[in-house]
Amino acid sequence: MSDSYPQSRSTVPHRKRERMSRDKDLVRRVFDESWTVDVAFTGGNGEPRVLPMFHVRVGDRLYLHWSSGSRLGLTSEDGIRVSVSATLLDGLVLAKSWTNHSMNYRCAIAHGTARPVLDDDEAWDAMKALVDRVEPGRSDRTRGPSAKEWAEVRIFRLDLEEVAVKRRVGGVGDESADADVEVETGIMPVETVVSPLE
Amino acid sequence: MSDSYPQSRSTVPHRKRERMSRDKDLVRRVFDESWTVDVAFTGGNGEPRVLPMFHVRVGDRLYLHWSSGSRLGLTSEDGIRVSVSATLLDGLVLAKSWTNHSMNYRCAIAHGTARPVLDDDEAWDAMKALVDRVEPGRSDRTRGPSAKEWAEVRIFRLDLEEVAVKRRVGGVGDESADADVEVETGIMPVETVVSPLE
Repeated sequence: MSDSYPQSRSTVPHRKRERMSRDKDLVRRVFDESWTVDVAFTGGNGEPRVLPMFHVRVGDRLYLHWSSGSRLGLTSEDGIRVSVSATLLDGLVLAKSWTNHSMNYRCAIAHGTARPVLDDDEAWDAMKALVDRVEPGRSDRTRGPSAKEWAEVRIFRLDLEEVAVKRRVGGVGDESADADVEVETGIMPVETVVSPLE
Repeated sequence: MSDSYPQSRSTVPHRKRERMSRDKDLVRRVFDESWTVDVAFTGGNGEPRVLPMFHVRVGDRLYLHWSSGSRLGLTSEDGIRVSVSATLLDGLVLAKSWTNHSMNYRCAIAHGTARPVLDDDEAWDAMKALVDRVEPGRSDRTRGPSAKEWAEVRIFRLDLEEVAVKRRVGGVGDESADADVEVETGIMPVETVVSPLE
């Protein structure tokens, strides 16, 4: 068994090759750490559209939650072509020259067809996993959906196949010629902090 | 002068109307607080694509930075149709029932044509503003781009016209019928924390 997702036309790096990875653990961790994803699709008018969504990863399946009232919910059971990104900002990179300023980040991008989950058991398990993302075991301590509530829930699934992570890690990449530029440089770490219940 | 961006077909709310706003201060603040945006566009193969980018807002102009080597950089001077989102997660909403779980967030989405900035002074000012986003006044303390470095820089501009914020604020929306479900509820505040230089 491979530890990497397969290479595809969409996940061939075209520049800064060393920043791209299809390592499964790395890809999965980015989706798991990120609280939301951005879902890009083509709207009915042919225009690009993007929407943030709440998601959960189960194995190599990414489940996306949205209300049946929303625009995407109107699309057919055939699914919709999407590009889904999860971006984690890890640090601001402060350098001696303008163009050496950068960011440390991890960004997972998956391409494919997001399809509505029509199997009721699968949709239920996905919804349960979405609730448990917020607090492990919470789905057992809270009330499950009534028939009416359940009818409003739409879960879409995107299988992680065409997927890769792009990232930057490490320190400042200053030029040696800039040694005498007198300015503080380094990394300002960035973190998403979730505080206890208020 | 209006304090709101104009209504357009893309920014008419189709559901949860109260969650959408075109208030200029609110829209601007979301782009200013967010460190990155997600840019959706249609790829050369007709497929939806999304990329995170570093941005800065100057007045009603959103400047997007990317390298000339990247895929989007290959597009023509006519610009490219985009949908750009900035999403701030403010809190996790823990409720008594599965479907009342939610998130407090502010998401700005702008639609339009992103065009390469061909005016050299405008591009320079935008690049300077990008550096100063990281630390006010930093562009004056660091070395500006050499001719070679400058030739690699691509700044795109999207004018904020067709733009709105969607948001959720406030507390838990539990049903009165769930009063006897014994579980802790409330908001877990979420924040992006930038630490001092390391």
